[in-house]
Formats: sequence, structure tokens, C-alpha cells
Amino acid sequence: MKIFRAQFSGFCFGVKRAIKMAEEAWLANSGKAIYTLGELIHNPQIVAELKAGGIQSADRASELKDSIVIIRSHGITKAEKATLVANGNILIDATCPYVNRTHELISNMVAENYPVFIFGDKDHPEVIGMLSYGDEQSRVVTGQTDFNGKQFSKLSLISQTTQKPEAFTELASKLLPLCKELRVFNTICLATTERQQASGALASRADLMIVIGGKNSSNTRQLHSICKTFTICLHIETEAELDPERFAGVQTVGLTAGASTPDEMIIKVYNRIKEINRETDFARSIEQIPLFKEESC
Amino acid sequence: MKIFRAQFSGFCFGVKRAIKMAEEAWLANSGKAIYTLGELIHNPQIVAELKAGGIQSADRASELKDSIVIIRSHGITKAEKATLVANGNILIDATCPYVNRTHELISNMVAENYPVFIFGDKDHPEVIGMLSYGDEQSRVVTGQTDFNGKQFSKLSLISQTTQKPEAFTELASKLLPLCKELRVFNTICLATTERQQASGALASRADLMIVIGGKNSSNTRQLHSICKTFTICLHIETEAELDPERFAGVQTVGLTAGASTPDEMIIKVYNRIKEINRETDFARSIEQIPLFKEESC
Repeated sequence: MKIFRAQFSGFCFGVKRAIKMAEEAWLANSGKAIYTLGELIHNPQIVAELKAGGIQSADRASELKDSIVIIRSHGITKAEKATLVANGNILIDATCPYVNRTHELISNMVAENYPVFIFGDKDHPEVIGMLSYGDEQSRVVTGQTDFNGKQFSKLSLISQTTQKPEAFTELASKLLPLCKELRVFNTICLATTERQQASGALASRADLMIVIGGKNSSNTRQLHSICKTFTICLHIETEAELDPERFAGVQTVGLTAGASTPDEMIIKVYNRIKEINRETDFARSIEQIPLFKEESC
Repeated sequence: MKIFRAQFSGFCFGVKRAIKMAEEAWLANSGKAIYTLGELIHNPQIVAELKAGGIQSADRASELKDSIVIIRSHGITKAEKATLVANGNILIDATCPYVNRTHELISNMVAENYPVFIFGDKDHPEVIGMLSYGDEQSRVVTGQTDFNGKQFSKLSLISQTTQKPEAFTELASKLLPLCKELRVFNTICLATTERQQASGALASRADLMIVIGGKNSSNTRQLHSICKTFTICLHIETEAELDPERFAGVQTVGLTAGASTPDEMIIKVYNRIKEINRETDFARSIEQIPLFKEESC
């Protein structure tokens, strides 16, 4: 069995930065209560580790008073930020700079009186945060949104950072005939695009593709949705979810991971697959490609 | 034989306005030399009539000194306007307001440092005029332009007023994946869109479609290109070009005309078709629908 890892996979810049900021906050404030508002990143295992280290996750801004609060990588709403400040909290802003950029762009578009359409998942914290920078003309849209032939003299379109670029372009193309001016901001981050392309390329020649990352992670779910168009694909959070039966007849395994998945977890999954390969009778080959010999895809 | 006229066809607002301005200039300046720089509108017959009335068409701005100069409906370049002013001419600006709007938008985009891509025919006077408001980053593009995967942090796209909306949307969709921000201005005028839709709808149920207008008229050529996808289609300037042989077996004739074609010419063509129908033996029906009973298409 051969095991390959996608050329781009795992932690992105924004997630690394958020974890580093959390660690630094923890070191600098030994013994004090530290909170994140919502989960720092969408990885339940990392969130559990942070909790064990003393960094709690709170659900509401109003619960937090006079505390050290780390703003999660996906950002929070304008109102939540105002509440945190009003309640005397010290804020450590770990919002991904690419998410912050969407807030700036939305604020600019509102100031210039452009209705803002946000392409994304309306229930995702990042999108809820983005929408809070809009005004009464702003709304969240998807590829399925029916615009009923409405006409716009001007309109702006912006994306959640972890969406699929092809789906974003498709939506923009659908809006173009309805607008006198359409201002399209492609705010899908490079890490997302690179991970999607590398994962798709690897999936296209793997018998089985394993996507590792939080079930609540938007970018991980997108990787799963792309890879499953090429081959059999499993979305797991940890190596414990691997079922040896799924490897019957498999000669090439592809590994990829969302932007909030640490290398440690990718290595655990890799080791568990090697173990399965040794344990079972059905493996036809035991050749293994070193995990970190990256694909040239 | 039944003859229908497309619901929207013939003179548009900008052309009517230009001719009215030329007539008023002629009345107000009796006996003085009046010029247009380039042809006032793209209709050789109207241009010939203007010439007979004393309104000459000049090819170069530098030829005109201390004269009354009507700026044609398609607009002129920034440099030509400056030369005309410097040479002491009195300018009567008959540039279509929708074309003027493109000049404004291009100037704004240059001021905001957006490269400007102009979708259109690089040799058409309107496009040459538009480009003159751009800067060294501005260029004329078509659906065939190869962008070689070049990436743009920001870009604006604007259209010649007489292009096909579908082709413009297609080009914008091609550019979207290359841009961090794409600002699309749909400057195709409503008269163009209405004439294209009404002509296509009529052509779809005509045995023969006649498109009337200048061979040098961009919007007339677009009508011809749309209609010929539905049925046999002839592009003529005058009724003299009608060949009776082409009406053999034809039961339904559709008439449409470009934005610079006067009603007089449409009526001449209509009368000639009626005449052909009477003259020839091959007409199977002589039923005629009044020309100006408009289609509900």
C-alpha cells in the first residue's frame, strides 16, 4: 500500500497564528482565567487541549466580564466585540487577517452604499461575523439563491474565505446579468485554494482518500466534497475512526487535512494506516512512501 | 406573405438626439460651414443627406479650424476634443449620453488606479474614444483575448454600448478567477438589449429575417449575428439590395433595424417587399400585417 500526503494540507497561516497567540496569552497570564469567544479554531481535539490547559471557550459575549478574551480565528460580530469591550475585558484579537480583510471590505462597501452579498454558509461563525459589518441591504447568498430577476444598479459580492472558487465564480456569473455594476471581491484565501487543488489532484489517483479535520470545519468539509467527486473519500477527525475493513483492496491512499488540523493528527492517521496495513491480510503491497515526501501535484 | 416588424427596432434615443442637434445647428447657423468629426451616425444614407444639406464630415480634428463642429454620437477621443478646442472651433456635443457615461466611468477607474479592460471592437470609433480616457494599463479585449493566466489584484471591465450582453457576461466570467477584485460595469445600453431580444424573438419564427442598417454599424451587425442563428437573415442598407429570388417560398418575413436606421428606410423596405410579393408568382399568400402593428414579443 502506498500512502501520499497532498502537497498543501493542514494548518494554515491564520490557524497557526491563532494558536501561537493563545499560547503566548497563556504564558503571559499564568494562573488567570483566559477565554475564547466561540471555539478558537474548528478542531475539537485542539479545543479540548486548550481547555485542559486552562483556556475555556464561552458561548456568549455577555458571559465574559473583566477577563482576558481571545477572539477566535473566524472573527466575531461587531456587537459581540462592543459587548466585550463594554464589560471590561482585555481582547487578544486572533481573527485571521484574511477574515479581517472581509470586514474592512464590507464596511467600505456599506460606506459607498453598495448592497453587500456574502457567499457562504449563513450559520458559520465567520459569515455571521462578516454580516454584522453589513447594513440592511446586506445578505448571505448561495449558489441556490433565487434572485427572481431582480435588477441592481450596483452590488458587491464577497466570499467566506473557505468556499470553492468555482462555485463563487458561478454565483458571480449568475448575478452579472442582473447588475449595472457588480463589484466582485474574491476573498477566498490562497491556503483554501491550494488545499483544494492539491487534494483534488491527489484524490484523482488514489483508491481511497482520507480527509482529516473537524466535522464543524467549513474548509475541511469543502475538501471532502471535492475529493469525493474523484474517489472513495472518508472525513475523519482522529485515527480512531479508521475502519480496517475500508482498506480492503486499496493500493493507494491519499491523505489531506483541513486548515485547522495539526501535523500531529496527520501523523497519527498515517501511523494507524501503516499499522492496519501490517495487521491485515488483504494488503497486496507494503510499500510506503514517506509521509512528508510531498507530491509534486 | 406576412410581414412583421420587431417590437423594438430603428432609431434609438442617442441617434434621434444627435440628428435633432445637427438639424438645430443647421437652422441656427444658416449659411455657415458645419462639420461633424467622423460620421454623425453609422448610416451612410443619413450621412449623405446631411452632406447634401451642408453638414460635411471631416476625418481629422486638425483639419477643422474656427468652425462649428458637431461631435458624433459615438464620441471622439480626448486628444481630438482638445485639438478642436485649441483650433477655435465651436463644439456641439452630440455624443450619446450612454457613451459619455463610459468616459466618466473609465476616468473614475483610472483615478482609482484600476486597470480598465474595454470589451469591444478596437477599430470602432466609440471604442477608440473610450480607450482615450484610459491610461497605460487600459486595453481593448474580446471573448477571444488570451490572458495567459495573468493575475490581477484589481481590474475593471466595461463594455462598448452595442455589444451582446451574453458575450460580455461570458468574458467577465473568464476574468473572475484571475482577479482579487473585479469591477464589472454593464454599459450595454437598454436600446441595444431591447433590439437584440425583440429581433431574436421575431427571427425565431420568421422564414426570412431582414436586418436594415449601416454595414459599418456595430449594433446592426450584432442584430444580424443574433438573427442568423435562428433563420435565414439578410443585412441590407436600402431596399435596392432586396433580391426577389430570396423570397421564394417565404411565408413570414421579419423586419428589424439598427439604432441608426430611420423609420423612412424601414417603410421603404416594407413597401418593396409588398411589391415583390405582388410581382412574383411564387408568393403563396398575400396576407399582410400592418407594419406598425407591433409584435407582442
